[in-house]
Formats: sequence, C-alpha cells, structure tokens
Amino acid sequence: MKDAEVSELSARISETQAFAGLIVRERNPENLEFPFSALNSFITSSEQFFVRSHFAVPKLDLDGWRLSIEGRVEKQCEISYEELLSMPSRTVTMTLECAGNSRIFLSPKVGGLQWELGAVSNAEWTGVPLAAVLKRAGIRAGAMEVVLEGADNGVITKEPVSPGKIHYARSLPLAKALMPEVILAYRMNEEPLSPSHGFPLRAIVPGWYGMASVKWLTRIIVTDTSFRGYFQTSDYTFWEQRDELPVQLLPVSEVEVKAEIARPAWHEIIPADTIYRVYGAAWTGESEVSGVELSTDGGARWEQAQLLGESVPYAWRFWEYYWRTPGEPGTHILMARATDARGDVQPMQRDTHRGSYIISHVQPIEVEVRKVSSSGSTDSYTI
Amino acid sequence: MKDAEVSELSARISETQAFAGLIVRERNPENLEFPFSALNSFITSSEQFFVRSHFAVPKLDLDGWRLSIEGRVEKQCEISYEELLSMPSRTVTMTLECAGNSRIFLSPKVGGLQWELGAVSNAEWTGVPLAAVLKRAGIRAGAMEVVLEGADNGVITKEPVSPGKIHYARSLPLAKALMPEVILAYRMNEEPLSPSHGFPLRAIVPGWYGMASVKWLTRIIVTDTSFRGYFQTSDYTFWEQRDELPVQLLPVSEVEVKAEIARPAWHEIIPADTIYRVYGAAWTGESEVSGVELSTDGGARWEQAQLLGESVPYAWRFWEYYWRTPGEPGTHILMARATDARGDVQPMQRDTHRGSYIISHVQPIEVEVRKVSSSGSTDSYTI
Repeated sequence: MKDAEVSELSARISETQAFAGLIVRERNPENLEFPFSALNSFITSSEQFFVRSHFAVPKLDLDGWRLSIEGRVEKQCEISYEELLSMPSRTVTMTLECAGNSRIFLSPKVGGLQWELGAVSNAEWTGVPLAAVLKRAGIRAGAMEVVLEGADNGVITKEPVSPGKIHYARSLPLAKALMPEVILAYRMNEEPLSPSHGFPLRAIVPGWYGMASVKWLTRIIVTDTSFRGYFQTSDYTFWEQRDELPVQLLPVSEVEVKAEIARPAWHEIIPADTIYRVYGAAWTGESEVSGVELSTDGGARWEQAQLLGESVPYAWRFWEYYWRTPGEPGTHILMARATDARGDVQPMQRDTHRGSYIISHVQPIEVEVRKVSSSGSTDSYTI
Repeated sequence: MKDAEVSELSARISETQAFAGLIVRERNPENLEFPFSALNSFITSSEQFFVRSHFAVPKLDLDGWRLSIEGRVEKQCEISYEELLSMPSRTVTMTLECAGNSRIFLSPKVGGLQWELGAVSNAEWTGVPLAAVLKRAGIRAGAMEVVLEGADNGVITKEPVSPGKIHYARSLPLAKALMPEVILAYRMNEEPLSPSHGFPLRAIVPGWYGMASVKWLTRIIVTDTSFRGYFQTSDYTFWEQRDELPVQLLPVSEVEVKAEIARPAWHEIIPADTIYRVYGAAWTGESEVSGVELSTDGGARWEQAQLLGESVPYAWRFWEYYWRTPGEPGTHILMARATDARGDVQPMQRDTHRGSYIISHVQPIEVEVRKVSSSGSTDSYTI
C-alpha cells in the first residue's frame, strides 16, 4: 500500500467511527438515521439520536454567540448563553420525528432522503421557555408569528434556486410559540448540545415534526405577517383541501399518530409454534397514544397490544404483543396501528395530499416463519 | 408519397395554420408567443395575442356555465353569462405580460417555457368590474383575499406532485380586487373571448403580471386567510428579503417597468452611414412610462427616445429613435431602458432574487452594420 492509500483508508475509518451506531443516509450535510430495529431504551442516547441537517454544521463559539430577538417587539435585545443559563429552566421529554420519516416506503418513489423507520428519536431537553424570552423583549400588538432562524446556511441548488446562501428558518404561530413546553434548549440528555444537535441552542417544539425544532438558533423575529420562508413555502409543505377553497400547499406542522414495529425487523426469520415478542413505539402530536393494535395476518384481524410504562406528554410510548407463531412455515405480514386520545387512528392507506411528508399510514412488516429442527436451528440456513 | 404520409403532412399543415402568426413554444398545453419583431399595432389582434396555458383548454358551453361566488360573503350566488352581459360594463386597454417573458435570456438557464420577447401583448377588454360582482354577493367582515379559480385543471407532475388534478387558481388581496379597473372580461377586442383566451369569462388584472388574469373563470371565493394555492406558493414565486426577516418566497404580482426593442431584431444587418428607425414598446405596473432611453454603444451613452401617441393607463407605449448609423462596418449593441412616473428605472443587471420570473433587466440587441455597395445591396451576401 502506498502512503496516500493508507492515509485515505485511515480517513475513511475515522469517518465511519464518527457515525458509529447510526445509518448514514447522507454524509454532507449530515443526515443520519437511528437503527429503529435496535430500539431498546425510552431515552435515545445523544450518540444514537437521528441527525437531520440541511446545510453544513455551523461552528459556533460561545464568546461570539448571541440570541437576537427582533421584529414586532418593544425592545430588540440580545441574550448571551450565560444569561440563558441563569433564567428559570424547564425540562421536556420529546420525541422528535422528521416529517420525511418512512419515506423509503412510499410508492411511487418521491425525492428527498430515503429514511426507513429511524428518523425518529426521543430525548430529554432542558432550556428556557420561548415565552420567557419573548416576554423579555415584549411582544407588540399585531404580532402574528415567531420566526426561528438558525446559523446554518447554504445555497438551494434545485429550483427555486436561491439567490446565494439562505439560512434555515421556520415560523410558529404566536399561540404555539407561547405554549410553556416550547423551549429553547441548551441541554440534551443532561449534557450541553453537541454540534450536530444544534450547539449552543436549539428550539424544541413538542407536538410538531422535527423541522420546527430549529437548531443553531441565533435569531428570533416576531412578525405581523405570515412568514413565507423557503422551508415552509417550497420545502416541508403538503397539499390540503380546506373548506371550499382550491387545494393549497400548507406548511407541515403537527405530528400525526403513528406506531412503528421495531421487532421483528423486515424479513426476520421467526421460529414456528413458539411465543415471539413483537414490540415497538407509538407517538402522536397534541394528544397522547391511547392504544396500539397489532395484526399478524396482513390486516384481517386486529388485537390490542400492551402499552408499556406511563404516558409522558410528547414522548413515544413503547408497546409489546406476544405472538403465538403458526405451526406451519410461511410468510406473514405484521402491522401495528396506533390510536390517540382525540380518536385519531393511523390510516391504512397513504394520503397522497401529504406529498413527500407526514408518512404515518400503517407499514407492513414481512417475516418468515420457519420450523425449528431438533438440533436447535431452523430448517435451512439463511440469515 | 404514401396515403398515410400525405395524411400526416396534411395534419401538420393544418396544425401550423392554426398557430399562424404565433411562435409555438409548447403545443400541449398551448403556449404560443407573439413574434415581437413584428410589432406594428397598439392593439394586438386576438389571433396574434400570446397564449399561456397551464393545462388543456377546457371546453365550456354557455348553457351549463355559471360563475359561483362563495366563501366569506353574505349570500353565496351564481351568475349566468346573460346576467353578466346585463350588468354595467367597463372597457380597459391592458398589456398582459407573462411573468416569465424573456426567460430565454437568463444565464444560467432556468427551467420553464423559454419565452423570447413576445410573451406580451395588448388588447381591449370589456367586462364587469370584479367589485360589482363581489358587491352582489356581499363581502363579510374579515375578508382578506379573493381567490379566482379557472375551469382548467390537470396533474402537476414535477415535485410537489399534486394529489390528482388541481385547478388553476390565484388570489388577489381584497384592496386590489376592489379596484375599478379589475374586471371580469367577456370581450377581447370587441369580440367574445376565444377558447384559448378564456371563453366565456376571464379576469383582467391591470398592473399585475398575466398569471393573475385567470382564464375560464368559474369560481370566486372570498377568504379570511392568505391563500396558498400551488400557483402562488410553489409556482410563480420570487425571493424577497424584506425588513429584517429571513428571505421569503412571495407570490409574483406587480409588473416592473420594462422597454423592449422590436426593431432591429437580434443580429439584423443594418446599412452603414444611414438613418435607421429603432422602435419598440415600454410598459409598467401601477404607474406610467415617463421615458425611454436608448444606447447604441453597449450602454456607455444613453439618449432619449421619442414616446409615441398618448399614455394609456396599464397599456404599453410605443417609442422610436432615429439612429445615425456609423460609417464603418462592425458589430453594435443596442439597449433600451424605460423609466416610470414613480421613478423606477429598468435595472442593467439581473436580480437573482427574482428566480425564473420578473425578467425586466435591460436586454442587449446585437446588430451588424454593413457598407452598402453602389449596386444597392450590402458588401457580402448574408441574410
């Protein structure tokens, strides 16, 4: 091996190690998926928490960093990291799901990152309520939305091609922004945020898909108009037929109820005539999961799964179901379907109005049941 | 020639004749350009008026057709073609320019129909003020916009792919909708509208680009929210940095001031040492053209062109400039630049914030000056 080759190989190994425990969907910018079939803990470790980035991770240092609050406020102000730490804090456990999670299962295929089941993770976040920061600046009459802008920026190269670099930014209606659980978080699982997760400060917007929880926050702008940034006008939108209006393209916002099966994994081989523990997680938006049903025959019959632990607002809930597997070998389709307290049920069919986002319809998991031979392995050798 | 070949050739000739006088940019849907170098009449004939269609031309018959007025109105109502004809009418002369006119000159290239100079035409339109129709239904308090929906519909096949067929629709802010010159037109140049131009009824929205003048009108919906239809959220938008907000994607609306040179045409050969009449048209949005300047040396010096005729609100104005051509042969760059009464001047450079729309920067026309030989033709034979 030549020196250059050794050096390149070494660089590749380091890169792989940096992504240990996550499935790489894209390297630059960083888009990394939590391997959902490895689900085993209510809190996802920061190392295994999925990463969604639109641009390169900005390098921010605490000396120079300030959070600016602008727009329709009484007094524009800047807050330092230390000042934020000194304000009353709040801790929220929140499951973040990317609005494009499960996109790989769409048919026909659509553009965008081809996430499987793992663009979703759950962590404990600590920070200052956004309402407290807004109160410090003073909201003026006529305020309508709160725009959250990150330091991350870059050029949009697909149409509409951006005029130079634009920053990632999203807005919240004022009423949502003032909800006490919407926080500006500086800690994730009891540690300062890592660069990939938004150091030094990110929004955490419980009940909404991940695109609202803006990372690397530097500016908050209160507006008296409806903000039409790229990430809520061109990107992260879905079709909706509302009232008698022609169909519209609205910004993706609230999380829909959804259950995902962690085990068995797709095409897992399961022994015949035994008890198999099917398990996974379920979550919803402004409500709580009230039940999960499981079907092991492709959707003909449904049975209640057991919800585990306590219901934690805005966090996923684990569930299990002990399946008596058939005596005969064959292919079986497993499906999980969640319901929430407001009565929303996961749909069986994809709603095409949702475009390439909000992929919450029931996903079948195909498994193979095999007879176990006396020697303790299944009939034939396949992994 | 075989019969099949004859038949095919005959069909092609008929098709060509149907488009006589217009440059075909797309056949299906119909997108046809006025040959701007043939500009010679203030009113463009209906046959030579450019055509912009998003979907197939809908076939509407007057017996079944009704205009429905819905949404935030006192009483929802339907108006027949005959009732519209019986209401007080208004005639407006309006230059319609497609928001994508001149797109072919953009560099780097952008997607969309590659219009040259002729996605613009001027006609006399007669119809009922939109305000009168809205008054009949009664606008309720809280009304914000007026959505105009056409009968034309189809599937959007590029992303965001539409969930089935959608109708062409655009909204106007209420204040614009109530302006007396905004009409629902049933006549174009003193004749009923042709199918390509919106029979039986289309909007005419003076001061705005053509996309607002919705054809084949069937529904008017008064809203209390900001409408986010496809043709003002995904399509027909431009980037704008407003106040301290992050950059936004706003719906294309008002026409920008612009002059176009009809003659000489691109690469026209012009005799040396003679007088050549340069001419064209200029137009603007909510103002009137106050002057046109011409440069014959690539933009170093500018001289006033002569405005012709009278200023007609919302219509183009012709202009001319008698150019003493140089004695020596060579390549020359001609440019025209318009100014309007509010002081807006056509920019020299493309503003990339405008994306693939609002292409109003100064366009150079390259011509070749040649010496005329004693026999009356230029030195060398080239057409």
